[in-house]
Amino acid sequence: MERIFLDNNATTLVDPGVRDAMEPFYSQMYGNPNSLHSFGIEVRPYLHRAMEQLYAGIGAADEDDIIINSCATEGNNTVIMGMYFSLLKDTRKKSIVTTELEHPSIRAACRFLEQHGVKVTYLCPNVDGLITAEMVREKITDTTALVSVMWANNETGQILPIEEIGEVCRERGVYMHTDAVQAIGKLPIDVSSFPVDFLTFSAHKFHGPKGIGGLYMRKGVRLPPLLHGGEQMGGHRAGTVDVPGFVGMGYAMELATKNLEYEQSHVRGLRDKLEDALLKIKDVLVVGERVMRTPNTVFISIRGVEGEALIWDLNQAGIAASTGSACASESLEASPILTAIGADKELAHTGVRFSLSRFTTEAEIDYTIEVVKKTVVRLRSMSTSY
Amino acid sequence: MERIFLDNNATTLVDPGVRDAMEPFYSQMYGNPNSLHSFGIEVRPYLHRAMEQLYAGIGAADEDDIIINSCATEGNNTVIMGMYFSLLKDTRKKSIVTTELEHPSIRAACRFLEQHGVKVTYLCPNVDGLITAEMVREKITDTTALVSVMWANNETGQILPIEEIGEVCRERGVYMHTDAVQAIGKLPIDVSSFPVDFLTFSAHKFHGPKGIGGLYMRKGVRLPPLLHGGEQMGGHRAGTVDVPGFVGMGYAMELATKNLEYEQSHVRGLRDKLEDALLKIKDVLVVGERVMRTPNTVFISIRGVEGEALIWDLNQAGIAASTGSACASESLEASPILTAIGADKELAHTGVRFSLSRFTTEAEIDYTIEVVKKTVVRLRSMSTSY
Repeated sequence: MERIFLDNNATTLVDPGVRDAMEPFYSQMYGNPNSLHSFGIEVRPYLHRAMEQLYAGIGAADEDDIIINSCATEGNNTVIMGMYFSLLKDTRKKSIVTTELEHPSIRAACRFLEQHGVKVTYLCPNVDGLITAEMVREKITDTTALVSVMWANNETGQILPIEEIGEVCRERGVYMHTDAVQAIGKLPIDVSSFPVDFLTFSAHKFHGPKGIGGLYMRKGVRLPPLLHGGEQMGGHRAGTVDVPGFVGMGYAMELATKNLEYEQSHVRGLRDKLEDALLKIKDVLVVGERVMRTPNTVFISIRGVEGEALIWDLNQAGIAASTGSACASESLEASPILTAIGADKELAHTGVRFSLSRFTTEAEIDYTIEVVKKTVVRLRSMSTSY
Repeated sequence: MERIFLDNNATTLVDPGVRDAMEPFYSQMYGNPNSLHSFGIEVRPYLHRAMEQLYAGIGAADEDDIIINSCATEGNNTVIMGMYFSLLKDTRKKSIVTTELEHPSIRAACRFLEQHGVKVTYLCPNVDGLITAEMVREKITDTTALVSVMWANNETGQILPIEEIGEVCRERGVYMHTDAVQAIGKLPIDVSSFPVDFLTFSAHKFHGPKGIGGLYMRKGVRLPPLLHGGEQMGGHRAGTVDVPGFVGMGYAMELATKNLEYEQSHVRGLRDKLEDALLKIKDVLVVGERVMRTPNTVFISIRGVEGEALIWDLNQAGIAASTGSACASESLEASPILTAIGADKELAHTGVRFSLSRFTTEAEIDYTIEVVKKTVVRLRSMSTSY
């Protein structure tokens, strides 16, 4: 069997159709879209179409903005730093409410602003691993400028109550940002019916290329750019746009939308099959109610089996899984989510995440189940604590 | 004849070899390099090699840093905004010295900081279109944190005295940044013998892909990141790296270095042929001494011929040229360089830039000469002022 990729929350295969759509812009159509000659002009309809695919994919209105940038980290920093310069630095708004669950790009940007006088509240998830609208409401004060809560958790796949949190924000006159990186292509995303002001996404999480992402900004919302310069993106984000990347992201979004039903049924079915099999192992814990998770993710803690050891053995058997966020995978810290839900110290290092995609096959899942079962027996036999 | 691309200062054809080098990372090798499994691990040697190609290309020392980012606009903003947070905001250093010639990403970031209490001096070029070390020295004060001057001008190709300016900065204990976007692949760049602290470059200006660039930072120099988050780039720039883009940029840098001699001889020869022919037209002005320009660029002002009109006619004949910076090409402003060298109001709208590359052929230049000559006659016959 070829290698099996079950780490789709870290990155994804570029869909072969997306690759094909990008190819012409690496060869014949290499113009700078800002140029006034035919090389520049001829690429513009493709960018226009890619933009329409993005608008359709998230249900944005014509008057809303979608800013093309280089990744979700850039989108997240654009919101946090933009809030600093537009409100936090010089008005009576002095604080941000976010969560311990957020991607490092949110948490690190917030920690940076704390050095510059901004007050940040990091909500701890409750014993279910979740953040509720009520928890957010309690922390909003008159000085709060922004609430930032992820749509779906990268580690566990748990879906957060973004609609309710957004409503609390709207009620209190506070901007609402959501990092939807793990939600696009897995859940229906329709910003027209969700009260969020900013939403970030990244193409390489939904079978698009790396190095390109987007930031949705609701109509009328204004932020200074993170990248000052030329007039690209209506002045919201300077820099020559990555034409093939943009075209690829647009098409990847269209495909993600088209495949949503398949993701919700077939991918979910495979994930459930894997999860059911893993739950038959003694002393295991899966984080989060199954129906309240993205359909492709299962995060499991297996007592007596260190996460690092398990993923290494899986890797030897050709299976790619993860202990959690790729961005933190080298730091070997205890899982924040396992710590949050009150797992004991030993369990906090046992988490392993399997994240599937529409390219995952049933044969791959069957093989994975067999390998995990055998590996758990082997590792437990060597464990001094189990 | 196929279309002729003489707008290589705006963007360039991705070298077919670069395209081939990138391809595997869109298909088989799509792992996130931060992942601990084989998909992640297998790409790392390629990134390592790309990094070595970049170090070799600009002569960086092992202890120096090169930060991979999304474009020169990001690199330039990283330096300007990093200076703000590390020095300008909270220390007695309160000012920046830069020039009117800089790319919009430098000027706009500086203008933004002016709204936040930073004093910025924008040096006007002298009648030769240049900035001298003496002009910089006169404007440095005890509160100056940074000097930022481009290595080679995007409009005219004029080379600025970066070594002398860097020496003035070092003498005065001021950081020196240079935007070398238009110098890479055209001039020998060796930071080990040039006193600059920061240097930005962008792959798509030297036959690499769009959406990827780099920022050189000399050993010991520290800046807060523009993009906070994961630990990529040693904490200097968060965000999943664009693996194919990075690999492509590395190889493009190697090819740029290898082709430098060809650029300095053959491309220069073609440029000179074009320039000599254009200079035979009556009432024309080429900006900058030929030997003091990048070998691929000629910026010409033809009295009685509006730049916009000429490039449009050239475009109709299949030739892509430009009135100046692509980033400002839609704003239709008077050329800053022509204004600076004291051209009268009529002449300030006549500038046209031809920028060649190693893919330019002699047949293309011959054809271009014929078309320009004919077009000038036609446009002058219609001119009310000539």
